[in-house]
Amino acid sequence: MTDTSPLPPVIVLVRPQLGENIGKAARAMLNFGLTEMRLVSPRDGWPNPDAGPAAAGADFILDKAQVYETLADAVADCAHVYATTVRKRGVTKPVVTPEEAAQEIHAAQGRCAYVFGPERSGLETEDVALARKILTVPINPEFGSLNLAQAVILCAYEWSKQANLAQPTVTELGEPAPQEELEGMILQLNTLLEKVGYFFPPDRAPATKLTLRNLLTKPGWNHLEVRTLRGVLSHLNRPRER
Amino acid sequence: MTDTSPLPPVIVLVRPQLGENIGKAARAMLNFGLTEMRLVSPRDGWPNPDAGPAAAGADFILDKAQVYETLADAVADCAHVYATTVRKRGVTKPVVTPEEAAQEIHAAQGRCAYVFGPERSGLETEDVALARKILTVPINPEFGSLNLAQAVILCAYEWSKQANLAQPTVTELGEPAPQEELEGMILQLNTLLEKVGYFFPPDRAPATKLTLRNLLTKPGWNHLEVRTLRGVLSHLNRPRER
Repeated sequence: MTDTSPLPPVIVLVRPQLGENIGKAARAMLNFGLTEMRLVSPRDGWPNPDAGPAAAGADFILDKAQVYETLADAVADCAHVYATTVRKRGVTKPVVTPEEAAQEIHAAQGRCAYVFGPERSGLETEDVALARKILTVPINPEFGSLNLAQAVILCAYEWSKQANLAQPTVTELGEPAPQEELEGMILQLNTLLEKVGYFFPPDRAPATKLTLRNLLTKPGWNHLEVRTLRGVLSHLNRPRER
Repeated sequence: MTDTSPLPPVIVLVRPQLGENIGKAARAMLNFGLTEMRLVSPRDGWPNPDAGPAAAGADFILDKAQVYETLADAVADCAHVYATTVRKRGVTKPVVTPEEAAQEIHAAQGRCAYVFGPERSGLETEDVALARKILTVPINPEFGSLNLAQAVILCAYEWSKQANLAQPTVTELGEPAPQEELEGMILQLNTLLEKVGYFFPPDRAPATKLTLRNLLTKPGWNHLEVRTLRGVLSHLNRPRER
């Protein structure tokens, strides 16, 4: 492989239900050369005795899988987060295919993550809101039930296909800021806006915060840009009339 | 669909072992719009009670699956037969990827077949000998154990990609807001920041404003997003301590 990006993407399973499916996902990952799995609040805890047998030899991926409380924690170091969904939600984010995502990931600077939801229900709107983009497999519209390991394998397969592509063009935009920097900025803005009574009526606050989050994760600002914006927010927080 | 071949390809499972895997293969087929399955001497006979539950709704594919004694019978009406193998055998035939096979199938005249071997051992040399070409998934050479349903789904996925079966829904991001809306927002922010003494020292103000402008024109926010941000700025401009 002549992949030039620093590290292969991580696979994040959000609230996975069955250990067997976690194992199968690990096997699918390894089939196409991905080895870093992260788990967000697996339903039955971790480790899970059902995972190993299903991994069919990809056990080392399970052994080194990291567990997180929240998706935000799990992707804190990732610059490009792809939320996989089958159906479209009411979220305005760019939608890409596995192939397009793979192309972007190979051209990207910074760590990338593919995020998969629980087997039964898929990702929640709040999970999707954390992502830069939505990844949707172009599937038979009459039969869209894709199981977890199969969704994983299609993404990993496309990533692997692109792994021996030509050198990606180097952009001089600076690496996109990792998710935790963005989170810091969003928290700062929300705090500020609470103080000035922006979130009114209160029961609309979650939806409004979601709108802001979607809007602010869209640009892919780099570290310096996020720092600049945080400087702006700090100033706006200062007392007036000096 | 822009598929020009008369009928979609058939999926032939040669001596499949577990009913569950036959069911999963059916599900994987239907995910990408393939519906004709043929079985060659399934180990446990046919029908198999374990297949239906694993098909997860793709049962009708199992119901109409045809059973044959030999692979030769199963592909008798097919003009283009692709034998899927993981490792290369001592057979001199052209080897194609799932993507190349899909391209050929869409361009082909006559019926095409993807042939898959038993779960444990794969196709025998005699089976491969019947095929026009060998289809090999470009897999991690250190971990080539691809399960049956996953081999099927990758082939069906590539076929479907070429068929334009289902594109992900067009993103509803809205057109980027016209420049004058952005200008209005930038002016509003600058005014606000002047009031709180952000531009200091004053001779750095033009450069700082340029930085902010670059940063704010990067996302390509749409009309609604700009309006939201202007609402945010208006609130930040309000007196505190109400």
